[in-house]
Amino acid sequence: MEALSNEKLKKMSLASAQKLAERIRKILVDNVTVTGGHLASNLGIVEISLAVLRCFDPPRDRIIYDTGHQSYVHKLLTGRASLFSTLRQEGGISGFPRRDESPFDAFGTGHSSTGISAALGFCEAARLSGDNSAWSVAVIGDGAFTNGMVFEALNNVRRGDKIMIILNDNGMSISKNVGALAEQLNKLRTGSGYFEVMEKSRKAITSIPLVGKPVAGAIVGVKKRLKRAVVTQSNVFEQYGIRYFGPGDGNDLATVERLIRVAKKQNAPCIIHLNTKKGKGFEPAESSPSSYHSVGSKKNSPEKRCSFSRVFGSELIRLAEEDEKIVAITAAMCDGVGLDGFAERFPERFFDVGIAEEHAVTFASALAADGLKPYLALYSTFFQRAYDQFLHDAALQSLPVNVVLDRAGVVGEDGPTHHGLFDVSMALNIPGVSISSPATYRELITELKTSSASGPRIVRIPKGAQDQALCEAFPCREPVELAGDVDPDCLFVAYGRITSAALGAAAILRENGLRAAVMKITRLKPLDAVKIESLIAGNGAPTLLCAVEEGMRRGGFGEALVADAATGNLVFGAKDFLICAVEDEFVPHGKTSSMLARCGLDAASIAGRVLEKLK
Amino acid sequence: MEALSNEKLKKMSLASAQKLAERIRKILVDNVTVTGGHLASNLGIVEISLAVLRCFDPPRDRIIYDTGHQSYVHKLLTGRASLFSTLRQEGGISGFPRRDESPFDAFGTGHSSTGISAALGFCEAARLSGDNSAWSVAVIGDGAFTNGMVFEALNNVRRGDKIMIILNDNGMSISKNVGALAEQLNKLRTGSGYFEVMEKSRKAITSIPLVGKPVAGAIVGVKKRLKRAVVTQSNVFEQYGIRYFGPGDGNDLATVERLIRVAKKQNAPCIIHLNTKKGKGFEPAESSPSSYHSVGSKKNSPEKRCSFSRVFGSELIRLAEEDEKIVAITAAMCDGVGLDGFAERFPERFFDVGIAEEHAVTFASALAADGLKPYLALYSTFFQRAYDQFLHDAALQSLPVNVVLDRAGVVGEDGPTHHGLFDVSMALNIPGVSISSPATYRELITELKTSSASGPRIVRIPKGAQDQALCEAFPCREPVELAGDVDPDCLFVAYGRITSAALGAAAILRENGLRAAVMKITRLKPLDAVKIESLIAGNGAPTLLCAVEEGMRRGGFGEALVADAATGNLVFGAKDFLICAVEDEFVPHGKTSSMLARCGLDAASIAGRVLEKLK
Repeated sequence: MEALSNEKLKKMSLASAQKLAERIRKILVDNVTVTGGHLASNLGIVEISLAVLRCFDPPRDRIIYDTGHQSYVHKLLTGRASLFSTLRQEGGISGFPRRDESPFDAFGTGHSSTGISAALGFCEAARLSGDNSAWSVAVIGDGAFTNGMVFEALNNVRRGDKIMIILNDNGMSISKNVGALAEQLNKLRTGSGYFEVMEKSRKAITSIPLVGKPVAGAIVGVKKRLKRAVVTQSNVFEQYGIRYFGPGDGNDLATVERLIRVAKKQNAPCIIHLNTKKGKGFEPAESSPSSYHSVGSKKNSPEKRCSFSRVFGSELIRLAEEDEKIVAITAAMCDGVGLDGFAERFPERFFDVGIAEEHAVTFASALAADGLKPYLALYSTFFQRAYDQFLHDAALQSLPVNVVLDRAGVVGEDGPTHHGLFDVSMALNIPGVSISSPATYRELITELKTSSASGPRIVRIPKGAQDQALCEAFPCREPVELAGDVDPDCLFVAYGRITSAALGAAAILRENGLRAAVMKITRLKPLDAVKIESLIAGNGAPTLLCAVEEGMRRGGFGEALVADAATGNLVFGAKDFLICAVEDEFVPHGKTSSMLARCGLDAASIAGRVLEKLK
Repeated sequence: MEALSNEKLKKMSLASAQKLAERIRKILVDNVTVTGGHLASNLGIVEISLAVLRCFDPPRDRIIYDTGHQSYVHKLLTGRASLFSTLRQEGGISGFPRRDESPFDAFGTGHSSTGISAALGFCEAARLSGDNSAWSVAVIGDGAFTNGMVFEALNNVRRGDKIMIILNDNGMSISKNVGALAEQLNKLRTGSGYFEVMEKSRKAITSIPLVGKPVAGAIVGVKKRLKRAVVTQSNVFEQYGIRYFGPGDGNDLATVERLIRVAKKQNAPCIIHLNTKKGKGFEPAESSPSSYHSVGSKKNSPEKRCSFSRVFGSELIRLAEEDEKIVAITAAMCDGVGLDGFAERFPERFFDVGIAEEHAVTFASALAADGLKPYLALYSTFFQRAYDQFLHDAALQSLPVNVVLDRAGVVGEDGPTHHGLFDVSMALNIPGVSISSPATYRELITELKTSSASGPRIVRIPKGAQDQALCEAFPCREPVELAGDVDPDCLFVAYGRITSAALGAAAILRENGLRAAVMKITRLKPLDAVKIESLIAGNGAPTLLCAVEEGMRRGGFGEALVADAATGNLVFGAKDFLICAVEDEFVPHGKTSSMLARCGLDAASIAGRVLEKLK
């Protein structure tokens, strides 16, 4: 697709723009089925993205795509069409808006529901600059309204803020939408023109004639009360002082543009409610939008392979069949975390709370307080939203909440907003929390079985499948295991799937004539010091202790281990120490193996650093 | 006050209960002005707490006091009257609900807006148990509705949940209430019986007579539309399927009990809106509720002494006078963080966003993206709510947001929900973040002046005043300073106010014939390795390096420092290492000095551990 300036887009006739929409759909399908990414939501938003660029003047007007995975069309239309085949590839453009990628990406997103807060920041900055003629536009999905942050922002909208919220309502959230607000939106959606009804009602009340005394008396009283009801109560948005326009067909370009233009004239906070069809224009995605929410790249998309998520899901069903106290909770990620089977098998014991991680943790804590055994499955990166609740409601109260963190570690093409690299350093500092990080399915099953008796615990699992070589290297399946040479020059200590890289590094060391061993630790907290020290005593003290960690170095497990060793809390007998972990920077998007190598977490890099150190 | 069983309370006549209310007020004033604590809010809630216990059957019915500082009356009436003089004292009862204190405290609270989520957990647990006859009651202030978590919970309320939300509306939040929702509540509050109006309207619409064709036609159309408007739109709570009762006078026991009884009969989710007067019945608190929100104990309450908060506040005004890009943000803690003066001087550049830490950080990030210099002042403990936003919106985008964390370190009588012991270990793992922890006013002023150019930064300050001895020990006021003996047996490395304890420990070591030195580091991240190493080179390598930290040991600065030293990233030349920090447990409530000693963070304990280690 040729580069299109904003001016060209604006001058284009409606008919040409509609044709352009069809071309964009084709580009989306052709590319995203190859590169992988979020197909269905972007197919649904084509007309909205086009209309926004035709009706506003970015980068002067700030356009913010909340959550951000539906920004592909925006990217195509703002100078990145020629790069579109590099989407989500290493060195290519990101699958999410990024300020460093384009001035048309006003604010980076990736986690849900930050868009209105950011838009308000831009509004206030404009106001303080003395020129508040620019608009701040937040394009936001209906699912984002299940998260509380949206309401914190709505509560701070002020009269005169030139903020436009474009509600892209596909009624889907990521899988299906949940809760009372979804019902409200549904009422509006199916109400064939709430805005028009409201306008008509306002006029009709005023025009009720006063006839015949007894009737008039009743009517006047009713008029007063109802006028007040209609004018002051109205819908959820108007209560926040935000004018509501819609609903309209969000896949009809003319409608979208008309509503935006009408709303813009108000020069006041406004929301435009648009109904769109997820997967619009691509039959397979239209009929099964949930499976096309995020598609893998062509190579590995077809078969649904075994994965840690699926093992978790099926094992939890097995456990729940034996123990009726087990309940499962997800925050809008039922399929992603492997709970689809559980939801079907035990609908009464399954809770999808929406994109509401904070609520989820406190809710789970109360369930645990009443003797249930909640398993809350979240993506590692989204768990960051609930640090306080986990510390405060689960840990401080010693409540046995089981948090299963999926996508722990590098996740690949989704990049820095989605890598699960912070959970260990985030949770290690919380008293009374248990953390385990199984490296194989077998370990995962053991960890799930050993339910927490007191205090919360985290079981973290990576995206994808186990490494068969790892299973073979550690046949005993103990929470602490050691494999390799006695009296090693280097002892690697690792947890989770990155233990494979430690094994690889040990092999390289051996090729270099050194003795190497690998200790795999499943339970990071509390540490089984007795077991660790007895294994060391049996195997001989290493010259170098090298911690290998797929997570942040600062505040991570490696630093804790080395500090324990250096202060004598844990006796390794090592003369020197090395930590191979993610150094102090955000990891970009790209293939997982490639990103790990970039962080120095491949076997060769690790072995290289050890050889350097042992010189 | 004698112990009152729930049965006795229930059988008591209304008149006797009203008398009891007056006695409770007297006990509150007499005790809390001595022990310190939250006076005004508890004076306002006397009738509500009484009515809840008279109308429900705890602990079978779950009573949850959201945020929790208004639970004193509940404590007085549930077996803790004889302990009331120990409130907030070491070993005494807590100033917040605690599950380990009483079965009548169904869920511990301390941070705002968790109550409805917890209540829903209890509802679902009851439903799954097969006996859902028990109620879950969340008593919640109007200010809590400025936090998004409430809406995540409301969205998950289900038909048939026996949840009652009692909205204690004193129109104050902690200082004054903010935002659109406060306006909505105000409309309801002053609406002289929204519930009655709604009921009357419903009836009136039905009774409109149909007279004369043209009139009838108009009326029928209006009836249909308006009935729908009244029935389906109504107020913010009813949109979530929660029946609304009120508003009523929350300081009139008869009214409160009547509303609770009517609502209970519905056997459905309901909210009771009660207007109360903060400080009710104690003239000084009634006329100045904000200053009586939280009162210190008698000894140190009268004068408003100099403190880190006040120095921050006045210095920010000074900086803002020179730099119009500076703006300040608080999350409902304007006075607490010392921003009252700024708010008065620069009302246009000041934002109180309500109890909305998540929104605050993202909002500040957008302000920074547009070139402003936001200073967001939060309590350390509440910053825990915004870990994800800080990481994701500020750090990942390298936006220069200044976060000033007040109450960093042990805070004393408010206890484990309020100590600021986690912020360092929470933030160290985030790439690109700068963290500084000034130990004196002068250091604070220097840090505020050196604004962040790229990336966010944290400046953390403790509660209270600086230590004069500390100022004298480090006269140069450099970000890294060293004081003490050359070639020391022990080098202490410390930051913030706890550096005083390190100085004290050094003095004790000297009394024991040892050489000791103290290195004070203001900037924890990034570390100035060059400066540190040059100071060590000049002063001589220590035998023991002892990190002293008023924060969690796991994932904290001490572990990072020791790990850096052990791996050779930072050369100290030490032969042995020790970390004195908060070990893996929550710190209870009590005097700050006493709690620090409990954690081994007083001079004597630190010196003792060093002597042991050097033996």
